[in-house]
Amino acid sequence: MIMSINPWEDTIIALITPAGRGAVGVIRISGPDTIPLLSHVFPKAQVNQWPSHTPKLAQFYAGQEKLDEVLVTLFRAPKSYTREEVAEISLHGSPYILRQAINTLLKAGARMANPGEFTQRAWLNGALDLTQAEAVADLIAAESALAHKAAFSHLKGGFSDKLQELRTELLTLAALLELELDFAEEDVEFADRTQLLITLQKIQTEVTRLSNSFQLGNAIRNGIPTAIIGKPNAGKSTLLNALLKEQKAIVSDIPGTTRDIIEDKLFIGGGEFRLMDTAGIRATEDVIEQAGIQKTKEAIASAQIILYVLDSTQETPQQAVIWCENNLSFSENTQLIILGNKSDLLSNSIDPDKNSKYVYLPIAAKTGQGIEALLQTLTDLAGFTEVPDVLVTQARHQEALLHTTTALNQVQLAFEEQLPTDLIARDLRDALYHLGTITGEISPDEILGSIFSKFCIGK
Amino acid sequence: MIMSINPWEDTIIALITPAGRGAVGVIRISGPDTIPLLSHVFPKAQVNQWPSHTPKLAQFYAGQEKLDEVLVTLFRAPKSYTREEVAEISLHGSPYILRQAINTLLKAGARMANPGEFTQRAWLNGALDLTQAEAVADLIAAESALAHKAAFSHLKGGFSDKLQELRTELLTLAALLELELDFAEEDVEFADRTQLLITLQKIQTEVTRLSNSFQLGNAIRNGIPTAIIGKPNAGKSTLLNALLKEQKAIVSDIPGTTRDIIEDKLFIGGGEFRLMDTAGIRATEDVIEQAGIQKTKEAIASAQIILYVLDSTQETPQQAVIWCENNLSFSENTQLIILGNKSDLLSNSIDPDKNSKYVYLPIAAKTGQGIEALLQTLTDLAGFTEVPDVLVTQARHQEALLHTTTALNQVQLAFEEQLPTDLIARDLRDALYHLGTITGEISPDEILGSIFSKFCIGK
Repeated sequence: MIMSINPWEDTIIALITPAGRGAVGVIRISGPDTIPLLSHVFPKAQVNQWPSHTPKLAQFYAGQEKLDEVLVTLFRAPKSYTREEVAEISLHGSPYILRQAINTLLKAGARMANPGEFTQRAWLNGALDLTQAEAVADLIAAESALAHKAAFSHLKGGFSDKLQELRTELLTLAALLELELDFAEEDVEFADRTQLLITLQKIQTEVTRLSNSFQLGNAIRNGIPTAIIGKPNAGKSTLLNALLKEQKAIVSDIPGTTRDIIEDKLFIGGGEFRLMDTAGIRATEDVIEQAGIQKTKEAIASAQIILYVLDSTQETPQQAVIWCENNLSFSENTQLIILGNKSDLLSNSIDPDKNSKYVYLPIAAKTGQGIEALLQTLTDLAGFTEVPDVLVTQARHQEALLHTTTALNQVQLAFEEQLPTDLIARDLRDALYHLGTITGEISPDEILGSIFSKFCIGK
Repeated sequence: MIMSINPWEDTIIALITPAGRGAVGVIRISGPDTIPLLSHVFPKAQVNQWPSHTPKLAQFYAGQEKLDEVLVTLFRAPKSYTREEVAEISLHGSPYILRQAINTLLKAGARMANPGEFTQRAWLNGALDLTQAEAVADLIAAESALAHKAAFSHLKGGFSDKLQELRTELLTLAALLELELDFAEEDVEFADRTQLLITLQKIQTEVTRLSNSFQLGNAIRNGIPTAIIGKPNAGKSTLLNALLKEQKAIVSDIPGTTRDIIEDKLFIGGGEFRLMDTAGIRATEDVIEQAGIQKTKEAIASAQIILYVLDSTQETPQQAVIWCENNLSFSENTQLIILGNKSDLLSNSIDPDKNSKYVYLPIAAKTGQGIEALLQTLTDLAGFTEVPDVLVTQARHQEALLHTTTALNQVQLAFEEQLPTDLIARDLRDALYHLGTITGEISPDEILGSIFSKFCIGK
């Protein structure tokens, strides 16, 4: 591993449980001064003689005052999360006590940990690689079963192992070529070029497969942005309620931070759909509504699935599609689903347009008719029914894989054009470099900064 | 100890850290099925062979799925918080993971703990007495240094020891009287009545002293309700800001739950003042404002200290006092402080009325002049400068002490009137009963129910 950041000498602390009042709050300490800090706040205890991995009941002093009676566990290096000296103190979960305890430790020379700093130290000390470190943050953030499973698999090294495999194959390839290079003046061609090309193509296929898994991986990690649109009184709200009633998991309203559009989370098929209720969309000339409509349009542009709800007694699917095409702009990959609501009020059923790209589903949001079919359609469209064991979930990884692919394509071209071995070797080293940035074997500083700053404090 | 509740046979669980996303969330298990439950969620581990007090890294399974890699510590009975078999599991602080983990444990036969149920079991099993158990909740709720100190002292048995002392003395008294009773037919007077009376009076003095400490104890535990009133533009807001700027601790706005009056917490002298900003008070006939004024009047009636802010260029202290007396109703014990604001704009200083019960202080909220003196006056009035080591903080304890006093007065009367020994003994047993309810040696069910229901879940 390349240490691109100086080893940190200071001892860091953080409240590792959520802020607020509770039965228990836990403060973690990590670094070389862990034991001196403990001796400072537990003056009556023989901290030096405490065995590792053994919770001790002790009196926490803030200066001369007894602050709390706590349970404290020392994890001696390297058998700890960060592989440094670590202690975890379980205090009474009073904001007053936790504040005083942290202030006491800070005054005694500790420093507040930056977001993700414990995990960053764990990574620096070789306890896990970069994809595993990133998976820690993903695991904590995961809200759906699939997002959780993907993060946990990454944490346990599922992704790293796959990358390591590819890396080993590339290294073998590189070694053979470098050997050729050493003897270049003797004009020998050691490696069997055909065999090399077959190996290369196998690697290319695998990298492409991984890279292609990002669309699904991203949908699993971040949820699928899904816009609900339609004319007033078409039944959007009724549909939303019907959908949310179907799910067994907890539903939360989060005010969109940038969009000012209310998002509801729908968990089905183990995955997450971020339903954007765009109440504002309609063909209006009202100037006052323009700002709202602009936001709605942005939401639609960002959506991967659009649910267009229409009142079957007022509007046909064909009319709806024409209206969408004339009024909205969304990408090629956006899937439009026309929901013929109030279909139970029609005497005849509507024939969907077989040639159209859109999906048509008759529903009756009020009675729940057709909702099951809609949920199944959403799950199928999302790809949540067939999830591979290893998949790419982070844009950073995807970007590195795309760079790797580019470099590998260069290698292939060089092979085919029988370019000199040293040029091929250079492209191969390029591919290895980009692959290495994923697990952190090669890790530019700017990447590290952005990775760990996204963590919560305490991890 | 009298077991007034049947011992509980089931095993309880709770998230003992605050809800929400964080680095770590801790689930506690307590009860006879702790080890079977652990074996269920850690199927790959030899839980039976785990030593006590030793954190283990283990894979938590939710059914067939690996849910998380966690640190779990077993505390074998009786060396645990509840003195039952206890385990604490530190999981990744993901709401999804914590929800799944709790569901898995519930499905396997655990029950969600009621508020305070862990502490209630600790008390039932003799790990602490009732005042200590109550102190756990107070310790977690404490926001000021004095409230924290009082709760911690109670937790460590400071109050219990004092009560135990009194109880022992009363028991000696009772034993001597009972002995007399046994030999009553022989008409013997064993005990030296004068000596008994002296002992009794000593106990009475001590109980009264404790009981009197409740006013301060309550102020320390709950903060001192302090209303800020005055005419519009007298400078109430400026004063509020000046006061809040002075404090070093964290200030929080809590919307009054019943009063609809905004409360600000002011921490000075180690104690807490609950500042009620009653913007609505003024001599108005406006019907629409009536509801707001009613609420303001209620706030004033509940206040222990009233800060009347006046504009010195517009109103004299005497006018203010007359206005208050005519328009407000507050109790005898309420302290009125007249703050002559904008005093820097006056050419002559105002002579305070020496004979009045109110305190007059000239201030200039804008420049901060006089604020220090006000803070000192508040701290002195609150009694925060001289806090005894042992004090009564809970209304339940106070009530029991008042009952004890009544019974002791009966005993004294009976002594003085030379009533038969058996009547005296009955009153003495009454006093012992009421004293015993405080520590829970005697504990009617209805008291227990109300005590533990006020706890947070997980304690």
